[in-house]
Amino acid sequence: MEEKKIISGFSKLSKTGKIKWIVENFFKDPESVMKELVSYWHKDHEQQKILDGFSENTISNFPMPYGIAPNFLIDGKTYAIPMVIEESSVVAAAAAGAKFWMDRGGFKTKVIGTTKVGQVHFQWFGDFEKLKKEEINLFNKLKNDALDLYTNMEKRGGGITGIELIDLSHEIKGIYQIKVEFETCDSMGANFINSILESFGNSLVAFIEENDQFKNKAPEIIMCILSNYTPDCIVRAEVSCKIKDLGTFANDIDSEEFASRFNTAVEIAQVDPYRATTHNKGIFNGIDAVVLATGNDFRAVEACGHTYAARSGQYRSLSSCDIKNGQFKFWMDIPLSVGTIGGLTKLHPIAKRSLELLGHPSASELMSIIAAVGLSQNFSAVRSLVTTGIQKGHMKMHLINMLYQFNATEKEISEAENYFMDKTPSSSEVRNFIEKMRKDLNV
Amino acid sequence: MEEKKIISGFSKLSKTGKIKWIVENFFKDPESVMKELVSYWHKDHEQQKILDGFSENTISNFPMPYGIAPNFLIDGKTYAIPMVIEESSVVAAAAAGAKFWMDRGGFKTKVIGTTKVGQVHFQWFGDFEKLKKEEINLFNKLKNDALDLYTNMEKRGGGITGIELIDLSHEIKGIYQIKVEFETCDSMGANFINSILESFGNSLVAFIEENDQFKNKAPEIIMCILSNYTPDCIVRAEVSCKIKDLGTFANDIDSEEFASRFNTAVEIAQVDPYRATTHNKGIFNGIDAVVLATGNDFRAVEACGHTYAARSGQYRSLSSCDIKNGQFKFWMDIPLSVGTIGGLTKLHPIAKRSLELLGHPSASELMSIIAAVGLSQNFSAVRSLVTTGIQKGHMKMHLINMLYQFNATEKEISEAENYFMDKTPSSSEVRNFIEKMRKDLNV
Repeated sequence: MEEKKIISGFSKLSKTGKIKWIVENFFKDPESVMKELVSYWHKDHEQQKILDGFSENTISNFPMPYGIAPNFLIDGKTYAIPMVIEESSVVAAAAAGAKFWMDRGGFKTKVIGTTKVGQVHFQWFGDFEKLKKEEINLFNKLKNDALDLYTNMEKRGGGITGIELIDLSHEIKGIYQIKVEFETCDSMGANFINSILESFGNSLVAFIEENDQFKNKAPEIIMCILSNYTPDCIVRAEVSCKIKDLGTFANDIDSEEFASRFNTAVEIAQVDPYRATTHNKGIFNGIDAVVLATGNDFRAVEACGHTYAARSGQYRSLSSCDIKNGQFKFWMDIPLSVGTIGGLTKLHPIAKRSLELLGHPSASELMSIIAAVGLSQNFSAVRSLVTTGIQKGHMKMHLINMLYQFNATEKEISEAENYFMDKTPSSSEVRNFIEKMRKDLNV
Repeated sequence: MEEKKIISGFSKLSKTGKIKWIVENFFKDPESVMKELVSYWHKDHEQQKILDGFSENTISNFPMPYGIAPNFLIDGKTYAIPMVIEESSVVAAAAAGAKFWMDRGGFKTKVIGTTKVGQVHFQWFGDFEKLKKEEINLFNKLKNDALDLYTNMEKRGGGITGIELIDLSHEIKGIYQIKVEFETCDSMGANFINSILESFGNSLVAFIEENDQFKNKAPEIIMCILSNYTPDCIVRAEVSCKIKDLGTFANDIDSEEFASRFNTAVEIAQVDPYRATTHNKGIFNGIDAVVLATGNDFRAVEACGHTYAARSGQYRSLSSCDIKNGQFKFWMDIPLSVGTIGGLTKLHPIAKRSLELLGHPSASELMSIIAAVGLSQNFSAVRSLVTTGIQKGHMKMHLINMLYQFNATEKEISEAENYFMDKTPSSSEVRNFIEKMRKDLNV
């Protein structure tokens, strides 16, 4: 029984061959599943081939909703933001935050730094103090040997901006690190960085082997790879206004009370890691949606942002709030390593359109946009939490999704919304309701 | 100029109305962009309506590659794993790891716990010691008042499993927390948890107001919401074999040397946060791909996993390695709050098929599967890093993607692969190469 679920040479099958094997061995109704998977292919064969090339063993496309959050005023410029996200209320929250702040001066951002990082780790049992004394010569050799790899990047204004020799041997015997800093301009730079690091690794071995004072102590390169932790590739996004200009909120909450409750909620996320995780998760709801829409790598952005959130030794909120002298200020410093050229940014047909929609931003401008969306998301989420609570809005949207499954009419949707107003219905309760309603109509 | 980029009532436009406004105001060639966005709609109107309902202001679908990593032997059962990921080599790496371990006993997993968490935060200036003495009565009231909300869950074996009253007032004046633990069976449980917490908030206010000893000190509920940090909803995945059974690797690396290099690489990720971030990012490459494919929430899983990685006070590797007594052991404890019912799991047509492909797993079984894929991913990534380096494979795949853009033939691809074998070509270099090749052929 299980034997047939093992296959040799799957990756060498044609796409149709792959689907066939999958549906025949894992599904009860192979033909209809095959039809369904094929129905998600793009009708243009060439377009589909491009999509298939992004990954391996691809048999279909997984459609993610592509939505728009309009009216984002960021540094005086208005954007309609493309967002790819499968969770309801994220686009609505981002757009609500954008609208709220458009009337209050919009989002202000500042790119604080754009430094990318890479590391060569090596094991060596030679005299580290001597190597440290030779580090200028070493660094020169590393750079000279890799010249071809970064000449083009230097022409664009980037390149290698720092090299450091780090001693990790007090933690792991014989382990040292070359930490390299890069400026990669409008690209995220992963391939660029990794190529240079691999060259550095080779040059390091040669440098030590060629140097008489280190002889008989060849280093062993453990690995050469970029770091996704880029705390100095960072942008600040901020909103502020007079507290009295915040307006009034649901449940008779005035601007003073809102500011106080909002500020307290952010403070809680600063001190409690359980709350901080969810607070930041909300920020990433907005961030990842734009990262995805522009063909960037959300795992890289997530890993970096969360490590940054833990930099103090405790995991904390990424955003901060301040209510002083009648002013409400809400801001966030967030490291974001993204690109607007290279990677999938221009290869994915819809990602390419996203960048066009954003006006062909530079990588720095994209950092600003993404940070503003994350902050807007966070503002709206915390606003809901401290005023109406989030359940009401969430359940309404989830109910509508469930109703679509039963092909509910507009009338049925409106009656279901009334009926389930203060409930948390399960899928079966929704089905029962619809079935009963239709039955009643037929009698 | 900018004025036309601001819109009121965007969400109330029809889908076509939304696209029209977007393309006319943000694109140079509105008609062709409109056509392109529409070309990504599913041809079945009802299917597309379901997809549109997942988010707001949707105008198209963003296609993500849906690939398969076959031959995953997990706890004695064989799976073909659906993976949604836009990064090349992730599916290939997962599949390579699966194949490697299939011959060595496969992945062993153990669900250590399934506890979900929620929090009610409130501000109160009453006598906390007195409230603490009354906590049993308080908790009983909270549970009794919310009975309707969790009766069904209790029938399924879940419910409320713990309540705790926590004093945060030493950090923020007057702030306290009710921390609630839940068992949500096969659902991720967000709506369930949030509904109960909002009920708890109301009941807490009533309890204090109705109790004479607290009179004139009404509490203020700040917020009620689940926590995405669920360190006790956790699974362990592990692989192990005799070191000598690891085989031989590229660059003449034998099994002993491989084990030692691999172990060192994991140790480095334990002590260096820059390396840990990238190491864990690789784990999430695998995890998120399955989380997405099964309609779960990758932001929640990311936030939780990274907070967990920072729990010691320093951000560290999630996986660990041990090479003792001739045995190689590689494992990971990872918190994963996922569901196989509720949310999008059954609503998204392809997510539903993913769960069918996995044999309709329970939430616990899905935790095991996801953890195994993450570990497999991590194994393959570190294996590449400490043997061949990752650049060679990466660049080859990226080159092929670029070549597809120029509709390269198989022959052209193979010549380009030779030509660029040891280079990191830019898109323009690839274009030049192809153009020159085609020109030469025409002469």
